[in-house]
Amino acid sequence: MDFKVISSKDNSLIKLVSALQTSTKARKENELFVLEGLRICDDAFQNGIRFDKLIFSDTAFEKNSNEIEKFKNNAQECYKITDALFKKISDTASPQGILAVCSVTSLNKAEIDKKGKYIALENLSDPSNLGAISRTAEALGINGIIISADSCDPFNPKVLRASMGTLLRMPLFITEDIIEFAKSNELTTYACVVDSKAQKITDIEFLGGSIALIGNEANGLRDKTIQNSDFKITIPMIGKAESLNAAVAASIAMWELMR
Amino acid sequence: MDFKVISSKDNSLIKLVSALQTSTKARKENELFVLEGLRICDDAFQNGIRFDKLIFSDTAFEKNSNEIEKFKNNAQECYKITDALFKKISDTASPQGILAVCSVTSLNKAEIDKKGKYIALENLSDPSNLGAISRTAEALGINGIIISADSCDPFNPKVLRASMGTLLRMPLFITEDIIEFAKSNELTTYACVVDSKAQKITDIEFLGGSIALIGNEANGLRDKTIQNSDFKITIPMIGKAESLNAAVAASIAMWELMR
Repeated sequence: MDFKVISSKDNSLIKLVSALQTSTKARKENELFVLEGLRICDDAFQNGIRFDKLIFSDTAFEKNSNEIEKFKNNAQECYKITDALFKKISDTASPQGILAVCSVTSLNKAEIDKKGKYIALENLSDPSNLGAISRTAEALGINGIIISADSCDPFNPKVLRASMGTLLRMPLFITEDIIEFAKSNELTTYACVVDSKAQKITDIEFLGGSIALIGNEANGLRDKTIQNSDFKITIPMIGKAESLNAAVAASIAMWELMR
Repeated sequence: MDFKVISSKDNSLIKLVSALQTSTKARKENELFVLEGLRICDDAFQNGIRFDKLIFSDTAFEKNSNEIEKFKNNAQECYKITDALFKKISDTASPQGILAVCSVTSLNKAEIDKKGKYIALENLSDPSNLGAISRTAEALGINGIIISADSCDPFNPKVLRASMGTLLRMPLFITEDIIEFAKSNELTTYACVVDSKAQKITDIEFLGGSIALIGNEANGLRDKTIQNSDFKITIPMIGKAESLNAAVAASIAMWELMR
């Protein structure tokens, strides 16, 4: 197998991977992201996503030679590094010793289906919520996920892991303004709000292309977004809980969209 | 304010709290559990749950004197300890410096409503799932939560925190055998399974007292439990995701129970 060996923590690729693992800015500037772990690398491989670089540790090279051999054919360049160096660039406490650096441009270009059902997330901040929502969206057959640019980065390694690879398969749209995005794609917007005067989600028939909008975990949707949505809808609640968790609210909204 | 001061890590109360924070066995043997943090202590206080012991750090004693004064009237005994000692017995990375030790027997005795709607969890293992399910159950107006004895301990501090205090208010039943429990309470059981031949949950009318059963995160419900349930129901899924996250599946099941 052809691979290069890196042993210095000052190597430019090592520095790049560290930055991609921890910094949204670095991911955006380089248009690159990291897939860490056997399972998510395999998910990406199965979905035809090219690896710019494949990086593995000494231990993984011995233990996972079959997988590395398979992934190698999908990678432009391969690198072997020490376990200690891998631990330095890993995003996990117990690294498996395999990661891939991929280009955002290698993902399939997503297209809007004007009759599709979409979930839109405005200023969602928790990576595990975004991952869970993606996983549910795929299971329920949602057509795609629209994410405001101020939400947590979908290429954050924690998000990719929580999504169990589903974010690599879901049509994904990042936009500055969800309402403008919906209008230009002729989709009807349904703002999910905690407001007993809004229409109950169970009374709505989602006809044609529809987007359910879910807001920030603590603050919900922005007032302007609510005002400019076509409909304000609510998930009826009783009890003392102040609101549903954002991932649960999104799950129920997607369930009703597809019901 | 009356309180005792503890300065030794070998003090028996300090040892007890450490055990209650980390060991299900210790919680069961002593029939005690720990509430850590201002918010959950206040939730419990609002719900009339007595504190056997109130323990606070030097810093909290200065910073949160109003809350401590309020909680003190609800506590049998109060203890002040150093910040360093509090950090030792805390379950969190950044302790607030307040915790209460409570008796399981101080919780309201839960009773089954024979026309109620319940969620039952068999061998659920993830504390954050149990917490999230409790939060959703309260918001949607579910009558109570039934937990198999081999599920994660509802008095695990991580569960209580994830539930945002809702588990202290929800009627809670722990049972060795969910099917037996349902039969003796004359409730109809609906096993949620991943099986395209099962009845779609959207085709079911949940009449009368009903329990939706959710299984372990990796393995689902036990075969015997499925066989002995009155109905097998499924949440229709498409896409490549193997199954919904257990908390999401429970949320959709509860939503349909109450719809």
